[in-house]
Amino acid sequence: MAKTYKIAVIPGDGIGKEVTPWAQKALEKAAEGVADFEYEHFDLGAERYLRDGAILPEDEEERIKRNDAILLGAVGDPRIKAGILERGLLLKLRFDLDQYVNLRPSKLYKGVTSPLANPGDIDFVVVREGTEGLYCGAGGAVRRGTPNEVATEVSINTAYGVERVVRYAFKLAMKRKKHVTLVHKKNVLVNAGDMWQRIVDEVAEEYPEVSHDYLHIDATTIFLVSDPSRFDVILTDNLFGDIITDEAGAVVGGVGYSASGCINASDEYPSMFEPIHGSAPDIAGQNKANPTAAILSAAMLLEHLGFDDAAKKIHQAVEADIEELGSTVRSTDQVGQDILNRM
Amino acid sequence: MAKTYKIAVIPGDGIGKEVTPWAQKALEKAAEGVADFEYEHFDLGAERYLRDGAILPEDEEERIKRNDAILLGAVGDPRIKAGILERGLLLKLRFDLDQYVNLRPSKLYKGVTSPLANPGDIDFVVVREGTEGLYCGAGGAVRRGTPNEVATEVSINTAYGVERVVRYAFKLAMKRKKHVTLVHKKNVLVNAGDMWQRIVDEVAEEYPEVSHDYLHIDATTIFLVSDPSRFDVILTDNLFGDIITDEAGAVVGGVGYSASGCINASDEYPSMFEPIHGSAPDIAGQNKANPTAAILSAAMLLEHLGFDDAAKKIHQAVEADIEELGSTVRSTDQVGQDILNRM
Ligand SMILES: CC(C)[C@H](C(=O)O)[C@@H](O)C(=O)O
Ligand SMILES: CC(C)[C@H](C(=O)O)[C@@H](O)C(=O)O
Repeated sequence: MAKTYKIAVIPGDGIGKEVTPWAQKALEKAAEGVADFEYEHFDLGAERYLRDGAILPEDEEERIKRNDAILLGAVGDPRIKAGILERGLLLKLRFDLDQYVNLRPSKLYKGVTSPLANPGDIDFVVVREGTEGLYCGAGGAVRRGTPNEVATEVSINTAYGVERVVRYAFKLAMKRKKHVTLVHKKNVLVNAGDMWQRIVDEVAEEYPEVSHDYLHIDATTIFLVSDPSRFDVILTDNLFGDIITDEAGAVVGGVGYSASGCINASDEYPSMFEPIHGSAPDIAGQNKANPTAAILSAAMLLEHLGFDDAAKKIHQAVEADIEELGSTVRSTDQVGQDILNRM
Repeated sequence: MAKTYKIAVIPGDGIGKEVTPWAQKALEKAAEGVADFEYEHFDLGAERYLRDGAILPEDEEERIKRNDAILLGAVGDPRIKAGILERGLLLKLRFDLDQYVNLRPSKLYKGVTSPLANPGDIDFVVVREGTEGLYCGAGGAVRRGTPNEVATEVSINTAYGVERVVRYAFKLAMKRKKHVTLVHKKNVLVNAGDMWQRIVDEVAEEYPEVSHDYLHIDATTIFLVSDPSRFDVILTDNLFGDIITDEAGAVVGGVGYSASGCINASDEYPSMFEPIHGSAPDIAGQNKANPTAAILSAAMLLEHLGFDDAAKKIHQAVEADIEELGSTVRSTDQVGQDILNRM
């Protein structure tokens, strides 16, 4: 009998609610016969916050932790001050569940029109650190609202936190084209940048087959446009990873095709899978959002649990769907159903 | 008789040395009859540092300060540890001379091939704060080189520093398409982001004709690829400005066409004009670098000194040159001479 996995489902806000059900359906269908899923739904996000002020109650977080993995839709709502849900829900989960590898593949699928004139063969993965850097929330402000206000943001980086994600990147490179590009801004952020570079150089010695180089974040934004096929594994910190994965998403034809995994690679806590797009309030509730990224995040969840063949079913269905119908205007449900029908 | 202006010239490293003479020649020719220039050359950069260990000696900085403006080439050399020249020379000048507006226009010239399939009509200016944020150098490290190392980087933002650059952006927008886009990451960097947004909202009230909106830095990298013609004035902090101006440079066909001004808008100290490209060690010394960005930085210098007509001569010559010969492979000297011949 197939083993049953417990999946926490957090559809969240806006289009998150529309695309997440399709991720679940794809999960089910792909794993038919090899794994069963039991879902625990969590009503978290803007609606809940506006209703009862709760963002991520402790007991619910405890229940989330008891699952084998998490499917997340999107978090963010224009009615709520920027940062409240992001810091209180999404980032709190990434930090509390120690999801230190934020894994974000970028691939230009056949049938997708890139905004680039000559995109070439784009297929790289960004390994973004997920639990440190400027995302720690270690800033403050004095004399707020006065002409003498000073506001700070502090990036905290530890050898412990950097080394584990660097190792992950080199291991991943061994399964790919064996090249790691460290992205930072070490000519300005000399303390953090120097530490990242030293740790990369050290770990690289254990992987003689993997070549590695370094690019400043600003130069990286250029190459993502001028020569994106040069990349294999991009390794970077939390903020730079946020920035370049959105640019990469645009370059491969829109964040509608970009999934991500917030991975606790030590398996102490469940990992979380989500499309990299946001809640898109402008198109929410209109059955317009593309569920492909959410469906691909289900494939990443399957890979994480060890079901590579099941994940492959999703990838193949998505690739075939995009190749044939990628340029057709379809509803959320239509795309979801079309992909499911191919599985 | 035409007034004489004193210009400090810092060619710096790599291709900086090849393109800066063309900026001077363009300056001379454009201002013929309306202004004269007296140059003071400063031997600063990698060669000097390797020779005698000097980066920016105090007396030389004092002499630089006594000029009316500064022409800078590029700073950076692979033989020298990242950060030493950048922090000790380039950023030190920007900070000590309180060049709080880092002005970076992006324009897609006729005749230039953008890497985008449908670039549209790109013409915007990034107003990057130049004296605060993560560039302050307020970080540190403990237990360096051990498994317990912690490295920090601190972003310092003041209402004083933000307000003056916000005002500059709104004033600039009045002379353009009257739209300001604030770029930040206020859903994560809640202290600094909140202050930026509040100050923008306050200053905006004094400019009822200027509309303004907000974009996260990650979303901005998407729009720069998918819809760059939407922008007019982009207002942002030091690090985000660094990142998006390089991406913008790529989108308008390469940073070879992008100039910048590090402006002390209160005129207490001289402002500095430089191409946004780096020292490009890979092509340095080969008479290959495109001097157009350096020549355009001379035009920005002229505008700053109030010589709009002279600046226009440069712009027109550059535009005509690019339109006719932009896609031809030419040497540094050939491009420089071609542009000069048109003036
Ligand atoms: C919503 C936001 C906090 C988040 C981030 O910055 O990490 C998002 O942009 C992402 O990339 O997942
Ligand atoms: C060389 C470097 C310190 C500099 C910066 O980061 O500001 C450069 O990238 C720039 O954009 O002028």
